[in-house]
Amino acid sequence: MARVSQEHLDARRRQILDGAALCFARNGFHATSMQDVLKEVDLSAGAVYRYFSGKDELIAAIVTEVLDTVRGIYERAALESPPPTPDVLIPRTLTRMRELRPATLDDGAWMFPRLMVQVWTETTRNPELAAVLREGYQEVRAGWGRIVEGYKEAGLMPADADADALARTMIAVVQGFAAQIALFGGISEETVGGGLRALMTVPLAEQDA
Amino acid sequence: MARVSQEHLDARRRQILDGAALCFARNGFHATSMQDVLKEVDLSAGAVYRYFSGKDELIAAIVTEVLDTVRGIYERAALESPPPTPDVLIPRTLTRMRELRPATLDDGAWMFPRLMVQVWTETTRNPELAAVLREGYQEVRAGWGRIVEGYKEAGLMPADADADALARTMIAVVQGFAAQIALFGGISEETVGGGLRALMTVPLAEQDA
Repeated sequence: MARVSQEHLDARRRQILDGAALCFARNGFHATSMQDVLKEVDLSAGAVYRYFSGKDELIAAIVTEVLDTVRGIYERAALESPPPTPDVLIPRTLTRMRELRPATLDDGAWMFPRLMVQVWTETTRNPELAAVLREGYQEVRAGWGRIVEGYKEAGLMPADADADALARTMIAVVQGFAAQIALFGGISEETVGGGLRALMTVPLAEQDA
Repeated sequence: MARVSQEHLDARRRQILDGAALCFARNGFHATSMQDVLKEVDLSAGAVYRYFSGKDELIAAIVTEVLDTVRGIYERAALESPPPTPDVLIPRTLTRMRELRPATLDDGAWMFPRLMVQVWTETTRNPELAAVLREGYQEVRAGWGRIVEGYKEAGLMPADADADALARTMIAVVQGFAAQIALFGGISEETVGGGLRALMTVPLAEQDA
């Protein structure tokens, strides 16, 4: 048998993951069969099963990869001094995801937000996927925690501000915009940044008293 | 045939909608059959079909009702002078939804966020439901637009702040926290408020220059 390079193996793995992600985003996890995935990537069953045992392994690999990417974006942001403020960092995250995962569905819609919504639904019924997502969520929260430390060190935020609550709110903004894009179509990074900037201008309720 | 009171009809309709919502939240829309709904509400097919022609009408009615409720919350908020700031209003919205839709799943989890995630997934494949959701989303955005006018009138926000972008961001926060609750379990209103307050203390990037 001919030796295959690591490069070839990686490219093949990439091809399978991207094709499976497209199938899941298009039709959901339950309605997608391994046959659909084989057809999408145009490979034999043997070629695909060499990499992944089935749909569960495929979706876990897709989710792990995306979470690693997002975590990397926030880890790099935490190293900046001061870290970019949320009105800059959240749109940047969206832009980076568009660059890294540019695939679109048949109707031209960006695939990635639709995939996220499908993953959430599957997660509510799949304890193994829930464990993968829970771990990734903790890591993204921890990444945001380091960004908040940077804000506090730079005097951008009071020392007693709730860092983990902010982390969860920032994750919620990304998740919510993903849901809106999946449901209603494109939302520009400019809108996301403008909304965060508008929110950040509102004085705290306590200060009104 | 005995005349039935409007009160009885309304109560029966409520019972069917609540039972169907529970089924959809638990197992998703596709995996739920009308038989499952009949069993859940403990009514005959004749009794249920008198109110709803099938699953599509059920989910459209559930979604319409929820969107009307959320719109009502924001319409009342817009009448306050000034309207409550987001760190107060978003937690209040969550509290109100918990009061109005207190049903829990078999594992004790709050049903409503799980139902939202299931509705989003179904929406990506169901144009009629997408139309219902799109209309409700526009109305909630318009409601937030009136709140932002109130902020601007009270001097809480610059006149040139992007009102619609803020509206979409506020909706994203609610959607994102719903996703997190559905995926990872309870998040307190205190955390949601604390996260928004922390965000609102961060000065704008432009002001750093």
